[in-house]
Amino acid sequence: MKVLLVGAHGVIGSAVARELGARHTLVRAGRSQGDVKVDITDSASIRRMFEQVGRVDAVVSAAGNVHFAPLEDMTEQHFDIGLRDKLMGQVNLAMIGRAWLNDGGSITVTGGILAEQPIRNGSSASLVNSALEGFVRGAAIELPRGLRINLVSPNVVQESLPQLAPFFRGFEAVPAARVALGYSRSVEGHQTGQIYRVF
Amino acid sequence: MKVLLVGAHGVIGSAVARELGARHTLVRAGRSQGDVKVDITDSASIRRMFEQVGRVDAVVSAAGNVHFAPLEDMTEQHFDIGLRDKLMGQVNLAMIGRAWLNDGGSITVTGGILAEQPIRNGSSASLVNSALEGFVRGAAIELPRGLRINLVSPNVVQESLPQLAPFFRGFEAVPAARVALGYSRSVEGHQTGQIYRVF
Repeated sequence: MKVLLVGAHGVIGSAVARELGARHTLVRAGRSQGDVKVDITDSASIRRMFEQVGRVDAVVSAAGNVHFAPLEDMTEQHFDIGLRDKLMGQVNLAMIGRAWLNDGGSITVTGGILAEQPIRNGSSASLVNSALEGFVRGAAIELPRGLRINLVSPNVVQESLPQLAPFFRGFEAVPAARVALGYSRSVEGHQTGQIYRVF
Repeated sequence: MKVLLVGAHGVIGSAVARELGARHTLVRAGRSQGDVKVDITDSASIRRMFEQVGRVDAVVSAAGNVHFAPLEDMTEQHFDIGLRDKLMGQVNLAMIGRAWLNDGGSITVTGGILAEQPIRNGSSASLVNSALEGFVRGAAIELPRGLRINLVSPNVVQESLPQLAPFFRGFEAVPAARVALGYSRSVEGHQTGQIYRVF
């Protein structure tokens, strides 16, 4: 399969590249590096990426930012960061990517454990990750040509603990390589509308 | 209790007014009618409403629109309607309303069954309703002064079937009066971070 991997150089993206790269042809996309550059907050940039990459069998996104801050300090503009980036960035990737997918192809987006299990400073992440789950459930039943869409919802990954441990005390961090299996199930399996939790 | 009810004149809002109005002092808010006018898509309008209404013991929202269309026809702008209106309108109502709530007061927002059970044309509704559930889970653990926040997730209501039946075939519609009990549980109960499903 030809797999477009957006966010290929992040902690999770790198693990997905190792897992899927062993069996498939990867096109790596990133904001500042990769085979092709893309800013997912900009639909025009997403369109240009697909024009360069051409048709694919799978679109995998391990990209997207949200703003973390105490609820007390969160402004409308702070929520907007997550809406524009991790949420609509990935929704637009799916909506634009559809046309470039071969029949039976798949879209895989990234949510996260905060959708279900909140932490302090994480109100925007909980909102955005849950929104992505809802979008995947909704879009899955309407995609044509056997196209599929799923979401991987990772726990905090072990590789990120040096930075994130204080925010995720008590969470049982998972290796990024285990999270990568969720993307493999989505791309190489045959389900749609699924939330693959890697908790 | 003094309860601010936003969207007081809709099908669900009217039922909530009947349920809570029997025991509490209601301030009814709406886009075009009510004791006070508010456009929840405009934070300045929300602020002006609270300046008129003053301190309250509960904020209840039964307001918010999303765009329904086949996934194929959904544009970024269509998704934006739901993000600005039902999602951020209610999030901003909660974020601004916090400061006007007495200790132990509650915020209740409205999601919906499409968060979990998608229908055709409902991708934006599934996204928005799920996002609201995530926000409520996240915000609940960070609210100060014993403030609480919950969400009521109604099925399609019987009173709306004349318009909506073709979109909700097989759904077991519930009377708006039953949906109103969810708001009563949120306002008059003592839980927080809950999703009250009325399916």
